This record gives sequence, structure tokens and C-alpha cells, in this order.
Amino acid sequence: MATKIHVGMETEMNGNGVPDEKVYNWKKRMHDFSGKVKRFPGWLWRTIWKVGREDPRRMIHAFKVGLSLTLVSLLYLMEPLFKGIGQNAIWAVMTVVVVLEFTAGATLCKGLNRGLGTLLAGSLAFFIEFIANKSGKVFRAVFIGAAVFFIGTAATYMRFFPYIKKNYDYGVVIFLLTFNLITVSSYRVENVLKIAHDRFYTIAIGCAICLFMSILVFPIWSGEDLHNSTVGKLEGLAKSIEACVNEYFDDSHEVKKEKQDQSSEDPIYKGYKAVLDSKSIDETLALYASWEPRHSRHCYRFPWQQYVKVGAVLRQFGYTVVALHGCLQTEIQTPRSVRALFKDPCIRLAGEVTKVLRELANSMRNHRHCSPEILSDHLHEALQDLNTAIKSQPRLFLGSKSNQATNMLALAAEHAARHNNNKQEKLGHHGVSLSSVKTDSSALMEWKSKRVISEQTKENERKVLRPQLSKIAITSLEFSEALPFAAFASLLVEIVARLDNVIEEVEELGRIGCYKEYNPDAEEIVVKCEKPPVDVTKNHLPSHAG
Amino acid sequence: MATKIHVGMETEMNGNGVPDEKVYNWKKRMHDFSGKVKRFPGWLWRTIWKVGREDPRRMIHAFKVGLSLTLVSLLYLMEPLFKGIGQNAIWAVMTVVVVLEFTAGATLCKGLNRGLGTLLAGSLAFFIEFIANKSGKVFRAVFIGAAVFFIGTAATYMRFFPYIKKNYDYGVVIFLLTFNLITVSSYRVENVLKIAHDRFYTIAIGCAICLFMSILVFPIWSGEDLHNSTVGKLEGLAKSIEACVNEYFDDSHEVKKEKQDQSSEDPIYKGYKAVLDSKSIDETLALYASWEPRHSRHCYRFPWQQYVKVGAVLRQFGYTVVALHGCLQTEIQTPRSVRALFKDPCIRLAGEVTKVLRELANSMRNHRHCSPEILSDHLHEALQDLNTAIKSQPRLFLGSKSNQATNMLALAAEHAARHNNNKQEKLGHHGVSLSSVKTDSSALMEWKSKRVISEQTKENERKVLRPQLSKIAITSLEFSEALPFAAFASLLVEIVARLDNVIEEVEELGRIGCYKEYNPDAEEIVVKCEKPPVDVTKNHLPSHAG
Repeated sequence: MATKIHVGMETEMNGNGVPDEKVYNWKKRMHDFSGKVKRFPGWLWRTIWKVGREDPRRMIHAFKVGLSLTLVSLLYLMEPLFKGIGQNAIWAVMTVVVVLEFTAGATLCKGLNRGLGTLLAGSLAFFIEFIANKSGKVFRAVFIGAAVFFIGTAATYMRFFPYIKKNYDYGVVIFLLTFNLITVSSYRVENVLKIAHDRFYTIAIGCAICLFMSILVFPIWSGEDLHNSTVGKLEGLAKSIEACVNEYFDDSHEVKKEKQDQSSEDPIYKGYKAVLDSKSIDETLALYASWEPRHSRHCYRFPWQQYVKVGAVLRQFGYTVVALHGCLQTEIQTPRSVRALFKDPCIRLAGEVTKVLRELANSMRNHRHCSPEILSDHLHEALQDLNTAIKSQPRLFLGSKSNQATNMLALAAEHAARHNNNKQEKLGHHGVSLSSVKTDSSALMEWKSKRVISEQTKENERKVLRPQLSKIAITSLEFSEALPFAAFASLLVEIVARLDNVIEEVEELGRIGCYKEYNPDAEEIVVKCEKPPVDVTKNHLPSHAG
Repeated sequence: MATKIHVGMETEMNGNGVPDEKVYNWKKRMHDFSGKVKRFPGWLWRTIWKVGREDPRRMIHAFKVGLSLTLVSLLYLMEPLFKGIGQNAIWAVMTVVVVLEFTAGATLCKGLNRGLGTLLAGSLAFFIEFIANKSGKVFRAVFIGAAVFFIGTAATYMRFFPYIKKNYDYGVVIFLLTFNLITVSSYRVENVLKIAHDRFYTIAIGCAICLFMSILVFPIWSGEDLHNSTVGKLEGLAKSIEACVNEYFDDSHEVKKEKQDQSSEDPIYKGYKAVLDSKSIDETLALYASWEPRHSRHCYRFPWQQYVKVGAVLRQFGYTVVALHGCLQTEIQTPRSVRALFKDPCIRLAGEVTKVLRELANSMRNHRHCSPEILSDHLHEALQDLNTAIKSQPRLFLGSKSNQATNMLALAAEHAARHNNNKQEKLGHHGVSLSSVKTDSSALMEWKSKRVISEQTKENERKVLRPQLSKIAITSLEFSEALPFAAFASLLVEIVARLDNVIEEVEELGRIGCYKEYNPDAEEIVVKCEKPPVDVTKNHLPSHAG
């Protein structure tokens, strides 16, 4: 009874407490809200500053839009201009809002699509008007309704055709819009031809202002963005590989690893990140760039599609770099002592690969062919070095024909391990040693007992227990610890093989793009990238229009 | 002299020949063109058929657009409706063209953005009108011009803010459009309030028709697409891994490899292709899905962002599969005899991995948790098996504690090689053997001599010679042939480790999405995919609007 009364009292108290709590909650929310409002100007200022610093061209673009809108408004605001054009000036305003894009190529593409769509729709609408005009009012309405349905369905279905979707999607939308506006209006308005003529006229004025602004006033070229982003990707990959190999052979690695997970701050991840998801942005930029006027005088056909190919090869290359990065993150690791045996040749090979990537980047940046000397000799030697290093440890891998029975590596490893143990005793540092892995049976037992508990615990704990499960499974395997190093070395060789594809496509780019010959004496712009390259993805505004 | 005359004659003949050639060219072009025209209906029909068969919902969408346009045209075509609404009905037509999207979520997102943008712009425009109204005509024009410039610049700059770009980009464009239209019109027209009111009214009608069509008539849900594409990705990866391992241990591999390069026909590539470039499409679908009404009754918050996380983990998993695929394509290969030693445990491990992936796919498809039994026991055992197999070959890898000096593997390899040679003599089949690789020095010599020639040859031959260069460099290395197999095995283990992340995220998805518990006795929809899953990327039309 006592308990029951107690419970009842508590309930009552809670019941009374509700208004207080509500007031408290409300006050707290108000406080949170006012805090947010206070922090808002600071946040806004920081965002404005950051967005502008990332790419100052964004500010230029914003000013260009403002200026174009003001210019086009003059058609309406200035008496003499308004008398000439009239109410339809509003269509020019609309065109400017909708057509003026970040890059010149995008603006051209949209402007021409808009023009083409409007013209086609206008012609078709007049044709239908011509047929419908000869009949009675009711038949006319039915005919117009049917035409709207049929053309609407057909045009929308056409938007799914891959070729049309890629090149003329915007044109089809404008076609549909204009066609409907003209056809439907024509039912009520007599002088449709006059309206259409005026509208087309003002749209042309709007397009002209957009083209003037995007091509002549501080132009921003898609082609340039594509070129720079490709150069940036080459350099990013070079940085990634360098950081990867350094981290793999770095002795203070274990401590670092805990600090920086695979976040955006990780220099390895940062280097290859831009490469991985670059497919759609590359294709869009190449499409827009193909609309832009050529900058080069001595090359009549500029190789934008070749940039897309280089991008594809770089993505393939990037996947291998991701796998190499994966070698750093696996739970079983080759003992540091074994790795140390191959440190120098591996670092040298990686150094040569990054040198090639940087040379490719520099050659692209300066629009010249890359020097054949730098590209192959040292890379070949570095591969030989790694080969020699691996062959000199015959007990490590199978296949060297001279079946030496020396126990060299085992001795070296033992020596290093003893050395390591001494260090551990001195520094209290927890290194990797063979004895630290559990035996299979004990780990399995432990894992089984954990599972019994896990099945008893609630569902929301399932998530916590799951990862441990296969961690035990893997570390208890006693997989020969050379395996991860073999994967690392093999991936390095794979990277060299894929580098070949990259070199090939970049050379092809140089051939099509009429790059100048390599001149070892020429002074060059070698950009030491202090600030990170512009992330083109972030400038790619979705293109809306009507 | 003779030569000169000869040349002169030739030139003359060419000169005379030009008209003939022109006529010939012209005829040829006409012929080509008429051929194209003749083939066009066939091509058109095939495209229409293919686009519709890939995803029949495209047809439904096209019909929906046609129907909505006809419905909205009735506002104009039918006398009683037109009397109520008037000329402004045209804005409803415009809204339908621009807002009605492929999926319900996209339509909702655009419709609400449009409404919000229009409302905000209207309010701001009236505020500015209110201030400007009190002053003289010239000051008013200057004030309006300045406001247009300032608001245009600020709004365009805001579109670059990551948060706004992601969620409200379309709203900002509509805001800018409406603001300019109202502000500029207000200079000439007296009763702006009336116009704005009517316009908003008709836009609301247009939006209502769009929402009705997209949510109630054969709705197409972004969330469903996202769900299905995630299930499809899991299955694709399972297929890839299966095909990869089978091809690696398949004896008729060499012949096949030449036939199918890394084209879209390659089943391995086809399996993981959809995973690699899925980032942007996943994010877009999740964004649209978050606007859609919930389908589930017992779960108040649907986990669309969790799908994006699963997608990210699957991409990470996919990169490892790409690296595994790379093992099949490298120029140095582990001898078939050595591979055969590990065939069974590798195939078993891969089989377990694919089983887990398929179980995950099935559990997602049926909206239930996956069975813990299937997920871990066999996978663990398969890992143990591979471990045992590798440990039983102590000369192959370093690190097994029992330093047996048996020459087992070398003997086995020798035996197999002899066996292979016999086969070769019988079948004339060219297998991989240790003696077939060149020694370093001879290969280097050959390569050097080739380089001298290559420097003499013309530039366009550069492309042909380049790939050979590092092919020689790599095959002449005599890299221990176990290295590639070690990489293969290591990547398999890596795949198991990453599979854990996938399991974790899918389980988390089940937890947030309130999936039902696993019931081993329940009958299930197990879809045997005969036809390939729908490629969601191809349905993603760019969203234009105004």
C-alpha cells in the first residue's frame, strides 16, 4: 500500500509539475533561440568570407548578375526605351535571371538552347494555329487540348533519350513551355503573331545582355576550370601517394592513426577525394567547354572529350590509391621490422611515381609535352630496386630461382623484435609483435561466450558488439604478417602499371591539343601550391530555367 | 625540268578535277544524308522502345505531364473557368511545365520552394514599393535600380552557400525572378497588389495540379528508388566478387580475357559500376525522399540520411572490389599451379562474402533485420580455412612460428609446372611458366634499343611505343610471382573487414527504419533478378525552372 500511495503522490506531483516544466522548456527554447539569433551575424559573416575566399570569381559572378539585371531593368525604367518595347520588357528580365550562368560555356549553351526551343515551339504553334483556325470554336478547343496533351507527352518522353538529355534537355523544356503558352493564348487572343514577335525580340535582348556579360566582362571559362581541375587532380594524387608511403613506413604512425581517422583532415584522403566522384562534373564541364570559343590560335579543335578520358583514367588510378590507403587501415599489419627492410625501395618507387605525376601536372599547366627522360628512366630503376630488395629475402616470397636456404630474414626479424621489446620496456610503447595475437581457439571461445551475452542483451546494443566480432576473427587468424606488405608492394606495382595509362592519355591530350614541344631550357611557371586548388564541384550551380 | 612539268600537269589536272570532285562529294553527302533519313524511323522506334523498356515509369510520367498540361489548359479553354481567372491562367501553365518532376519528392521540393520564393519575393517587393512610392519619379527609378542590383548580387552570392545550394537553390532563383518582375512592373503599373494576388493564385492552382498528379496518380517515389538502388548495389557487388574470384581461378581465363576488355559487357565491371559514381545521385534522391510523406505507419522518422551513409560505405567497399578486379588485369600473374593450391578456401571465402551481401540485400528488400547466424559463423570459418591453407605452405610466406623446412610448395609448383608443360606440348596452349619471363639485362637492352628508334620516329608514333616500355619493365622484373596472389588474398581479407562496416550501417538502417525482426520461418520474396535493376541515374532529369 505504502508504495502505491507513494507512486500516486509522485504522479500527482508530476501532474502539478507540468506547467512549470512547460514554462521552463519554453524559457530554455527562447534562450537557445536568442543565442542563435545573436550568433547569426557572426556565422553569416564567416560564411560570406569563406565562400568568397574559396573562389573570388563567385563575387565577380554575383556582381555581373546584379549589373545585368540593372541594365535590363533600364528597358522598363527609362522612358524612351520603354516606349519602344513596352510591357514585354519583362521577358528580357526573366531571360537574364534564367540564362546567366557561372561560366561562359554554360550561358552560351543555355542561351542557344533557349533560342532554339523558342523558335521551334513558335513554328509548331503557328502550324497548329493555322489548322485550328479554320474550324468552329468547340472543335478548336478540343484540337488545342489534344495537341497540348500529345506534344506534352512526346516532349517529356523525349527528355529521357540519352542523347537529348545530355545536349538539349533545357531546349526541350523551353520548347514545351513556349509551345503551351502560345497555343493556349492563341485561343483567346487575336494577334498572336505580334505577341510572339515582341516576346522573341525581348528574349533576344535578354540573351544578348547575358552573352555580353559572360563572354566580355571578366569571363569565367568552363574549359579553364576543367583544365585546372585536371591538373589539380594529378597533384592531389601525387600528394596522396607520397603521404601514404610515408605514413606506412613512419615509426610514429600508431600514435597518429588514432588522432586522424578518415576525415577530411586526412591529407591522403584529401588528395584523392576530388578524383573519385569527378565523373559527372567532368562531363558537364566538358559539355559547356565545347560551346565556348577557342582560346588557342594554332589548334582548331580543342580536345575537351580527351579531358573526360583523362578523368576516367585518373579515377581508375585513384581506386588503386584508395586500396593502397586501405593497407594502412587494416587491423593486421606487417611488423615494423619487416617493413623497414623494404622502406627505401618503396619510398623511392613512390617518389618516382609522384615525380611523374607532378611532371605531368606541370606539363599540362604549361601546355607542353612532358619530358620523356623524366618519365621513364628513374621509374624503371626504382622498380628494379624494389625487385632486388624482394629477391634478396628469399625466405619471404616464393619464386626466386636460386633456392638459397639462408635464414636471413628470420634472423633480421628476430633481431628487430628483440630490439623492439627492449624499446618497449624502456618507453612503455606498445609495438606489434608476433606473440601479441591470440591463439585461434581461445579467441573463438571468447567470441562465442560474448555472443551468448549479445543474444541476451537488447537490440540497440547489437551495433556495439558487431564490430568486435570480426576484429577478433581477423586478428586471431595469425595470417602471415607478410601478407599485408605483399599487398602493399603489389599495389605499388599496380599503380606503376596504371600510371602508364595516365601518361598515355595525357600525351594524347598534348597531341590533340597541339601542346608545344618540351624544352628543357625554357623557364616555367612552377606553381608551389600553398593554397588548395579551387573545388569546381562547389561552383556548379544547378541550372534552373523557364 | 621534267619533274617540274609533271608536277605542273598534276596541279592542272587537280585544278580541273575540282568541280568533278565537288559534284562527287556533294552526291556522296546527299547519298549519306538520304541513307540517314531512311534509317531515322527505325532508329527512333528502337530508341523509344529501349527507353520505355528500361523503365516503364518513364511512359507513365510522360502521360502524367501531358494530362496535367491538358487539365491546366482547360482554365483557358473553358468559358466559365476563364471568366473567373482571366489572362493570368497562363502562369498556371508555366508552373505545371516547370514544377512537375519525375518523382513525388522532387515535385514537392520544387513546388514548396517555388511557393516560398514567390511569397518572400512578393513581401520584399512590396516593402521596397512602399518606400519608393513616397518619392519623386526619378528618385524612384534610381531606388528601384539600386534595389535590383543589390538584391540580385546578394541572392546570387547566397546561391554559393553550401547549405542554401543544397536545399533552397531553386527557391532563391524563383525569389530573384519574382522580385524583379514585381519590382520592375510596379514602376509602370498602378495596381501591383492585384496582379501579384492573381499571379500567386494561379501559381497555386498549377502547383495543386502538379501535387495531385505526382502524389495521387501512379506516384513515383524517390525513397523507393533510393531503397531499390541500394539493394541493387548490394547485389551487384555480390555478383562482381563472385565473378572476380571465379575468373581468377578459372583455367580458361586467358582466352576469355582477350575477348572481354573492361567494357560494359564485363560482368565484374557491370556489378560494381553503379556503386562507384553514386554519390551525387544518392544525395539527390535522399533530399527528395525527405520531402515525401512517410509510407510506414510504425516509424515516425524515416532514415533517408542513413541510406546515404550506407551508400558511402558501399563505395568504400566498391573501391576494394575494383582493386581485386585489378589483380585480374595485371601483367604479372601468379602461376596457375600456385593459385590452384588456394582455390578452394578463396572461393569459399568469396562465396561467404557474397552470401552475406545477398542476405543483406534480401533483408533490406523485405524490410527486416538480417539473420545473425548467416552473417558471421560461416564467414569466420571461411577466413580460418584460408588462414590454414596459407599456413600450410610455410615456404610461401613469412611468419608461421613452426619453421618447417619442407620444400612442399616448391615441389608442388615444380610438379604442376611439369604437368603444365606436358599439357602445352599436347595442346599448344601457352601457359604461364617461370622461364617465360626475360632476364633483366636483356630486356633492358631491348628496351634501350627500342627507345633510340622511338626518338627518331615521328611524334604520332609516340603513343604506340609508350605502353610497351613499362610492360617490358614490369615483366622483366621477375617479381616473385606469389606477390600478386598475396595481394589478391589480402584484398579478400580487406573485403571481409570492410564488409563489417557495411553490415553495421545496414543494421543501423534497420534499427532507425524500424525493420521487423528476423523470422526464419517466414515466407519471403526472393527476387531472382532476371532483368537488370533500373538505373536511377538515367531517370534523373536536370531540373530547370522559372
